[in-house]
Amino acid sequence: MNEFTAVASDEAVAIARILANDHVADIVEALNREPRETATELLCEVTFERLVEIFDQPELDGASELMEALPRAKAGKLLTAMSVDRAADILRELDEPARSELLGGLAPPLRVTLLSILGYPEGSAASIMTTEFVSVPSDWTVGRTLDYIRKVERTRETVYAIYIVDPETHLLVRSTGLRRLITGEPDDSIMTVAPDRVPVTVSPLTDRETLAQTISKYDLLAVPVVDHGKILGIVTIDDIIDTMIEETTEDVHRFGGMEALDEPYMKMSFLAMIKKRGGWLCALFISEMLTANAMQSYEGELEKAIVLTLFIPLIMSSGGNSGSQATSLVIRALALREIGLRDWWRVALRELPTGLVLGAMLGVVGICRIALWQYMGFYDYGPHWPLIATTVGAALVGIVTFGSLSGSMLPFALKRIGFDPASASAPFVATLVDVTGLVIYFSVALVILRGTLL
Amino acid sequence: MNEFTAVASDEAVAIARILANDHVADIVEALNREPRETATELLCEVTFERLVEIFDQPELDGASELMEALPRAKAGKLLTAMSVDRAADILRELDEPARSELLGGLAPPLRVTLLSILGYPEGSAASIMTTEFVSVPSDWTVGRTLDYIRKVERTRETVYAIYIVDPETHLLVRSTGLRRLITGEPDDSIMTVAPDRVPVTVSPLTDRETLAQTISKYDLLAVPVVDHGKILGIVTIDDIIDTMIEETTEDVHRFGGMEALDEPYMKMSFLAMIKKRGGWLCALFISEMLTANAMQSYEGELEKAIVLTLFIPLIMSSGGNSGSQATSLVIRALALREIGLRDWWRVALRELPTGLVLGAMLGVVGICRIALWQYMGFYDYGPHWPLIATTVGAALVGIVTFGSLSGSMLPFALKRIGFDPASASAPFVATLVDVTGLVIYFSVALVILRGTLL
Repeated sequence: MNEFTAVASDEAVAIARILANDHVADIVEALNREPRETATELLCEVTFERLVEIFDQPELDGASELMEALPRAKAGKLLTAMSVDRAADILRELDEPARSELLGGLAPPLRVTLLSILGYPEGSAASIMTTEFVSVPSDWTVGRTLDYIRKVERTRETVYAIYIVDPETHLLVRSTGLRRLITGEPDDSIMTVAPDRVPVTVSPLTDRETLAQTISKYDLLAVPVVDHGKILGIVTIDDIIDTMIEETTEDVHRFGGMEALDEPYMKMSFLAMIKKRGGWLCALFISEMLTANAMQSYEGELEKAIVLTLFIPLIMSSGGNSGSQATSLVIRALALREIGLRDWWRVALRELPTGLVLGAMLGVVGICRIALWQYMGFYDYGPHWPLIATTVGAALVGIVTFGSLSGSMLPFALKRIGFDPASASAPFVATLVDVTGLVIYFSVALVILRGTLL
Repeated sequence: MNEFTAVASDEAVAIARILANDHVADIVEALNREPRETATELLCEVTFERLVEIFDQPELDGASELMEALPRAKAGKLLTAMSVDRAADILRELDEPARSELLGGLAPPLRVTLLSILGYPEGSAASIMTTEFVSVPSDWTVGRTLDYIRKVERTRETVYAIYIVDPETHLLVRSTGLRRLITGEPDDSIMTVAPDRVPVTVSPLTDRETLAQTISKYDLLAVPVVDHGKILGIVTIDDIIDTMIEETTEDVHRFGGMEALDEPYMKMSFLAMIKKRGGWLCALFISEMLTANAMQSYEGELEKAIVLTLFIPLIMSSGGNSGSQATSLVIRALALREIGLRDWWRVALRELPTGLVLGAMLGVVGICRIALWQYMGFYDYGPHWPLIATTVGAALVGIVTFGSLSGSMLPFALKRIGFDPASASAPFVATLVDVTGLVIYFSVALVILRGTLL
């Protein structure tokens, strides 16, 4: 791959050799590292067969732009030769009028198929399915099915999953695998090598997460997308893996408190980056302004006992941290279906004692810190230092408990009102907890220090 | 599944029927919902064949405890009948002396295989591989290979990936797929249906993340684990999916600022939960104590200009939020290999202007907020309010820039010293930024407010 980069601007012969010999996945990796113009030029050098392979890789960055740069006739031939699910992916990213122009140039059956896939919402099972699968009528024999598979093998995304449909109604009745098929007697019915069980299916609108869970739970190599009993297409396990990697990236970005990036970090334009991050950052900033309001309303107390301000960052961050822990736990447990919406009270009943114990731990550490500084003479908290230490300790118990509780309930709340629970980011929770944390701190201080400092 | 739960304490006949008819994945899901004692009782009711299927599911919670509750002889038979990789998984979780007892009862060849798999570090490719794969000498014909596969099909985890080895040296030379095999002529050499390319392999110590990336990049159904040219075993795509789900859970937990849970949230004992969360929480708390030290050293300034304290939570949280965004971006970009260690300066060069622009955005919002409150009479920041607003605005630029920079550099630093970059959690970054944030804030204040308020 390094040699590839080195010769990128070198003569065409050497490039063509590399493009012809390397594994297509390595070629795509090398192309992704080049600027778009170089990649476009390089793609003119490869054979048509290789071009199809390259565009069939979902890892190819900016495939739609590269497709648009090709002559229209070549692009049309390419879309026809590619796997249907990838062709739909690329068309989806394409801007008008290129999209309509390309679609218009395709043969009518393919155009209809692509248009129907493109009609489904992004991220749904039907939007990522391929229509190139093997299905046979249930009155065929094992031998006839094998002959058929040998003939169509090259044009199917997978031949390992075989779907058996009713010869009249075309409804899906069974599914089997090539491994079972080859163990059967050629003259027996195909039904003899199919497990006696209704196949696991998904509906066209099933979301990617459920799709991944279904494939993983039932250890499938592909899952059929079924509407009213008929197979529209299948989603294969390698598409699921790509999907899962994307999904994880989105989850981590969102948990970090920003909109998910849909392009690699280094390829994202500066403006797009500012947009994805600035929106959430401003929203959080404006919510966090409530802390200034809260502080203003306690100004009298602050003036009397300025020593209280010393611990504000410490106490507030502890609430945010415990909240962030609880949120990350609940987001994953919800995503893995370990818990459902109706389990919110179970979670609350766990987080309440957990928060109390964690808060007490931090409270003890905090009290020791103040006592140590006082005794060692590092700092003088005044004659009422034991009361101050008690205030800090008690506030920590309250704030960590509140942090754990609200951090764990936030994903439930988001899910309840129809949002993705994974939108509950660490900064979101911290902001939520900060304002309340201040109120808890000053309320505790008012109770404990009234008559002495306040 | 609900009916299953309902009859859990009902008569054995009904249970046995359900256990015999449902899809094994559904049975496992139902068993996971039962307390361990009920699950153990239920497992006594199923046929041995079903038992093997159930234990073969990696989704079965507490499989090692359930195995331990079985009579030793039955457990031994079960381990022999199960797939090798799952047997190794279960033995790994098992405590002594049960583990040695069970291993001792197995036939020597299986025992040797299991011991060698168990000898590899957890999470490595060899530790999750199975030795039940198809490999044939390169001098076999297509027909002979097919006959062989028909015979061994039942005992192999997959027969879709076929590995071709040198008949003398047993070194791996090629790999092919069953789909290619069935298109070949029975009398031709197996080499005629294998692509003319060295197979993609991994080494025994390859980590799970690289494994997932290799399988995903090359669109494989299985990848061979090769040592000195010989295949030790294979890792199949369905194990990879399970691994990826686990890995995502770990990443999200760690990004939330805690040790990753290795059990489902609701099944984790209270004490274990406190341990996993308390450690990091205390470590973060103790580091955050530096903020109290920083505040103490600015006490003189605080007393003179108490108005400055009002904005401390607001300003500090902005630094943490921008840092958390940058960290989540870099963690994912590193995990996806979009960037490597040597790209740190490229990232720094992107984050510097990004931080400046984002900081300026927040600075403008902050200045407007102070001006608005002053004009509308919501709060009186005193005669020097424009200077205070300027201090807040300038500090925000500095702190958000510092947050973005340090948040993006932290994963690099962790990776450089040999840690997983994903250990850089949102709370970790926030803590890192908080202390510096205070110093930046007060330094800016000293410059701008000297001679007026300070």
